[in-house]
Amino acid sequence: MYELGVVYRNIQRADRAVADGMAALGSATVHEAMGRVGLLKPYMRPIFPGAQVSGTAVTVLLHPGDNWMMHVVAEQIQPGDIVVAAITAECTDGYFGDLLATSFQARGARALIIDAGVRDVKELQRMNFPVWSKAISSKGTIKATLGAVNIPIVCAGMWVTPGDVIVADEDGVVCVPASRAAETLVAAQKRESFEGEKRAKLASGVLGLDMYKMREPLAAAGLKYID
Amino acid sequence: MYELGVVYRNIQRADRAVADGMAALGSATVHEAMGRVGLLKPYMRPIFPGAQVSGTAVTVLLHPGDNWMMHVVAEQIQPGDIVVAAITAECTDGYFGDLLATSFQARGARALIIDAGVRDVKELQRMNFPVWSKAISSKGTIKATLGAVNIPIVCAGMWVTPGDVIVADEDGVVCVPASRAAETLVAAQKRESFEGEKRAKLASGVLGLDMYKMREPLAAAGLKYID
Amino acid sequence: MYELGVVYRNIQRADRAVADGMAALGSATVHEAMGRVGLLKPYMRPIFPGAQVSGTAVTVLLHPGDNWMMHVVAEQIQPGDIVVAAITAECTDGYFGDLLATSFQARGARALIIDAGVRDVKELQRMNFPVWSKAISSKGTIKATLGAVNIPIVCAGMWVTPGDVIVADEDGVVCVPASRAAETLVAAQKRESFEGEKRAKLASGVLGLDMYKMREPLAAAGLKYID
Amino acid sequence: MYELGVVYRNIQRADRAVADGMAALGSATVHEAMGRVGLLKPYMRPIFPGAQVSGTAVTVLLHPGDNWMMHVVAEQIQPGDIVVAAITAECTDGYFGDLLATSFQARGARALIIDAGVRDVKELQRMNFPVWSKAISSKGTIKATLGAVNIPIVCAGMWVTPGDVIVADEDGVVCVPASRAAETLVAAQKRESFEGEKRAKLASGVLGLDMYKMREPLAAAGLKYID
Amino acid sequence: MYELGVVYRNIQRADRAVADGMAALGSATVHEAMGRVGLLKPYMRPIFPGAQVSGTAVTVLLHPGDNWMMHVVAEQIQPGDIVVAAITAECTDGYFGDLLATSFQARGARALIIDAGVRDVKELQRMNFPVWSKAISSKGTIKATLGAVNIPIVCAGMWVTPGDVIVADEDGVVCVPASRAAETLVAAQKRESFEGEKRAKLASGVLGLDMYKMREPLAAAGLKYID
Amino acid sequence: MYELGVVYRNIQRADRAVADGMAALGSATVHEAMGRVGLLKPYMRPIFPGAQVSGTAVTVLLHPGDNWMMHVVAEQIQPGDIVVAAITAECTDGYFGDLLATSFQARGARALIIDAGVRDVKELQRMNFPVWSKAISSKGTIKATLGAVNIPIVCAGMWVTPGDVIVADEDGVVCVPASRAAETLVAAQKRESFEGEKRAKLASGVLGLDMYKMREPLAAAGLKYID
Repeated sequence: MYELGVVYRNIQRADRAVADGMAALGSATVHEAMGRVGLLKPYMRPIFPGAQVSGTAVTVLLHPGDNWMMHVVAEQIQPGDIVVAAITAECTDGYFGDLLATSFQARGARALIIDAGVRDVKELQRMNFPVWSKAISSKGTIKATLGAVNIPIVCAGMWVTPGDVIVADEDGVVCVPASRAAETLVAAQKRESFEGEKRAKLASGVLGLDMYKMREPLAAAGLKYID
Repeated sequence: MYELGVVYRNIQRADRAVADGMAALGSATVHEAMGRVGLLKPYMRPIFPGAQVSGTAVTVLLHPGDNWMMHVVAEQIQPGDIVVAAITAECTDGYFGDLLATSFQARGARALIIDAGVRDVKELQRMNFPVWSKAISSKGTIKATLGAVNIPIVCAGMWVTPGDVIVADEDGVVCVPASRAAETLVAAQKRESFEGEKRAKLASGVLGLDMYKMREPLAAAGLKYID
Repeated sequence: MYELGVVYRNIQRADRAVADGMAALGSATVHEAMGRVGLLKPYMRPIFPGAQVSGTAVTVLLHPGDNWMMHVVAEQIQPGDIVVAAITAECTDGYFGDLLATSFQARGARALIIDAGVRDVKELQRMNFPVWSKAISSKGTIKATLGAVNIPIVCAGMWVTPGDVIVADEDGVVCVPASRAAETLVAAQKRESFEGEKRAKLASGVLGLDMYKMREPLAAAGLKYID
Repeated sequence: MYELGVVYRNIQRADRAVADGMAALGSATVHEAMGRVGLLKPYMRPIFPGAQVSGTAVTVLLHPGDNWMMHVVAEQIQPGDIVVAAITAECTDGYFGDLLATSFQARGARALIIDAGVRDVKELQRMNFPVWSKAISSKGTIKATLGAVNIPIVCAGMWVTPGDVIVADEDGVVCVPASRAAETLVAAQKRESFEGEKRAKLASGVLGLDMYKMREPLAAAGLKYID
Repeated sequence: MYELGVVYRNIQRADRAVADGMAALGSATVHEAMGRVGLLKPYMRPIFPGAQVSGTAVTVLLHPGDNWMMHVVAEQIQPGDIVVAAITAECTDGYFGDLLATSFQARGARALIIDAGVRDVKELQRMNFPVWSKAISSKGTIKATLGAVNIPIVCAGMWVTPGDVIVADEDGVVCVPASRAAETLVAAQKRESFEGEKRAKLASGVLGLDMYKMREPLAAAGLKYID
Repeated sequence: MYELGVVYRNIQRADRAVADGMAALGSATVHEAMGRVGLLKPYMRPIFPGAQVSGTAVTVLLHPGDNWMMHVVAEQIQPGDIVVAAITAECTDGYFGDLLATSFQARGARALIIDAGVRDVKELQRMNFPVWSKAISSKGTIKATLGAVNIPIVCAGMWVTPGDVIVADEDGVVCVPASRAAETLVAAQKRESFEGEKRAKLASGVLGLDMYKMREPLAAAGLKYID
């Protein structure tokens, strides 16, 4: 349940180095390192290919068809932040375009995650300002109703608290609570460190069946081979 | 982000009288009384018509295709509770049928709210155990993986904390934070108390344009009548 | 493309007797009589079972999350009208409930067709005020932006001009242009008049293959029977 | 991959008594008895509440917007059959209404399962001819292109061979291969026979946790209770 | 409501220079210049990235699974036209591929807007013939039923009259009525002319809050800052 | 209906040269050559642009959220195979990433077709291992339940038997039964051979109306031109 009409100016951001270190690992590895939780719904897609980012969340809650609070959240951005936007009802309107992106980028924002639509896709790609969204739409919005900035929000099915770490790439978007960010980074890096060796083995033709020692549990579960 | 493998046994339920008092008001009036927030997504629909309930939330987090934790949450139910169930990924499987409903009902549960599927619809209606769900599906589930009970969850796009008040009817499902339940009940009852008089006026042919004094602001906004 | 901020007070309604006569025929027969055109998209569903109506269209264009114009259109309703509502962008909010329905009914409206959501479903059923909509949702709306009344609109994929005849039942919603209403009624009644005889034949075991003389064209098209 | 332009007249239907005996068990129990397989997708919904049937499948493959083969399949119906209809591409048109239902019923059909739309819902309910479909739509169809009758088809994601047993109720639709029908009936009846005792225990307040002896495996999996 | 079996050969196209001038402005700016109306639904997406076009609409109405009228509309194309295609029911089939595109391009068409599917995506990109569609599908169509050419149609929720201006880019598709095209172009160019200055200010760190003088109305609406 | 817990090791693959020869023709031409059947649903999309492949199907059936059998199917891959994966219920989880792709590629697989989600999109593109899927998702899976390998499956609405030929490109995915592969290749090549001449004619401005001699049948169907 949301508190409306407020802007929290002082939020506790996750450690900068930790937040920055997650981009290289990617959303899949980070989500696995947390115990397979934290993902936003898979309908959230990048508006252009290739972007892979991480940063600290500043949040904004908006009403359908109304992007007034986008200008309010802009002022709260610090370098290294990622803006996470939720709407109080389903909406695909284009809340965000190249002018707002210019402002966000000037403030140091790295990306926008929005459970709605955006526009000016070509310009956003030219500016290299990545967005993960539910829709792309030319539909403009009005500026009439108060939402909130830096309150905890639900974005695309996931709870996001201001200051959490957001990791986004072509596979999706994951949110890591600030309090668990450091341990998650370590766990994710550990996972990652094993991948090279595994990849080499598999590339040489070794089967996962043997590498992960699955033949016995599969047989125990009753798997039968038929010639 | 979710904590897995835990069951919180002691939760702070909203005041019983307050929780009980909201059923008569309905989800629309309660959501308006909170400032038009708190609703679960409208894809959550009752599996049979006519039910209108309120109660205190006990929550359960489940994995796709796995209803093991449904049996764990059953033990945490107290009379007057409503079970609210979320899944860690999109799933339409039938997590719940007449046997579990019998158990829930025996423990005093009033309803289930689940962001997935249920089955045995005919029996649930016969038992008068209402469910609001995303789907109806015969698909059975396994019992293999731990989720969690009575942690805060996101269900159908809304944040639900154990002990919150749930109000559900044919219009949808709303969640009222326990801390705001008492004031919300008062505000909702106040809204409701004005409705009879308004209804009588409108029924007599008075227009909302006049009753709400809208003609002047509409003209100010530029509305033009053309004959 | 829409003209905003206007209310057309004088519209040319289809002949009353013609408009009234179509309810008994139903949406499927009327749409066939027009040459299989005129249907709104099948996601438009009645909010309770059993209603079957026809009437003359008054139209209203609304913005997402804003039902202000609903009060403006109420004044333009005449007995026998059906209100047809379109939104300028996708929206599932609950634009309409029992208070507006009381007002619409007092003015003589027979139904609402809306490409969005409604609420107070239980009360609407009790009042016997039928609605065909895209969604049911408790989500309330604001009153802030001008739309238009009695302009031609696109509702659920179909062009509706004020004064057209609307026919709605459990199978869907069809729009008949006022200029073609009289001939369509005749054609639909003619279709209907043949149905009794056909039904009796089919009930007696005669096959459509023989009744419609399909065996020869099927053979000509190459159909082969294999024993 | 489909063979077009053919009608297979001699199909091997599952044993009549076996096919008839499954209706009482319902789709959920039958699907569990087969090892949790055989279900059509959950978007297949009954067009009116309360129906619960089983019977032997006759199949028909149709093209989008073309119901010509419906008349061809009618001739192949025998008492106790259920018609299962697939379309070669996504379509929501109304392929079937009260006239075809009259013909199907006269031939002894018990129901229609169709991965598309139907119409005349009110009349079908009056006739008590149940349908499970993807959509309800007034949209009529033409009669121009050959499909096929009694070939194996994919309907709503499930492979259906002519003569298989279909079980349909408010929970969904399941297909049981003719060759496995007898053993499935036995297994389903066995499952069902245990339910009464379980229900009584659960109704008396015994928990599933104890009845199914889940406490130990839950603890082994690491479940922690927190007071 | 549609008139079938007709081809209108003489349509009033919007002024060529006006129609051509809109491509550079893009769909978002043009739609804003019209008062935020005129957009097709956001499910209409380009089949390859980068295209941005404008032109005059020639329209075609087709039946599900039947592309016969595509060949009829080809003859009505003049250089600078964009073909806009609607279907009488929901359909995702591939109505259009490289052969038709070759013909359309030879006649001077700049693009296709179709509320259905297309195929030969790779070849269409090689030919640089852009398409905005609801789907991509290999599914072929037949040539059996008459539709209509150059009648007003509803395409993806928007009313399109032959001769209207279509503007399409990565943000979506907008339709400008021929009668309003000239004034819309002027208004859109004016909007565009202010953007450079705004962008420069925002890039320098000025906030929208100050540039648009929003602080006072936000405070008036009750916005509170919390430290 | 599926047989679970089995791996068929000896499958009859379609002729290698025939299977290889289809890639150049593409899914649309091959599907037309079979009589417009065999396509998987159009929601199956390539995860990166440009890939066009054909090969012989090895099949795998998986449970929601469980990719254990992916490792089992890896061992059954032979050079020139394409893995086709179905899930027993709707699921968008990421079943497959760069490690499994490395293993599949080492065994000689050319692609994966999966009616669920995949992840590591960027790496898969780098490795040039194409995937056609319903979703992209970071969501990981567990390894707990037996499915089956090389049984006939339904994938995205189409029946696929091990050894069938799969053709996939940007337009979609088609399955050609092994028994019909040779004749289909011949028919598809014949279709293709006519395309060059047709394209040249259309490019020179000849209309399909004349090239396909459609003017007479259109007139016979009643088409009217209006000046």
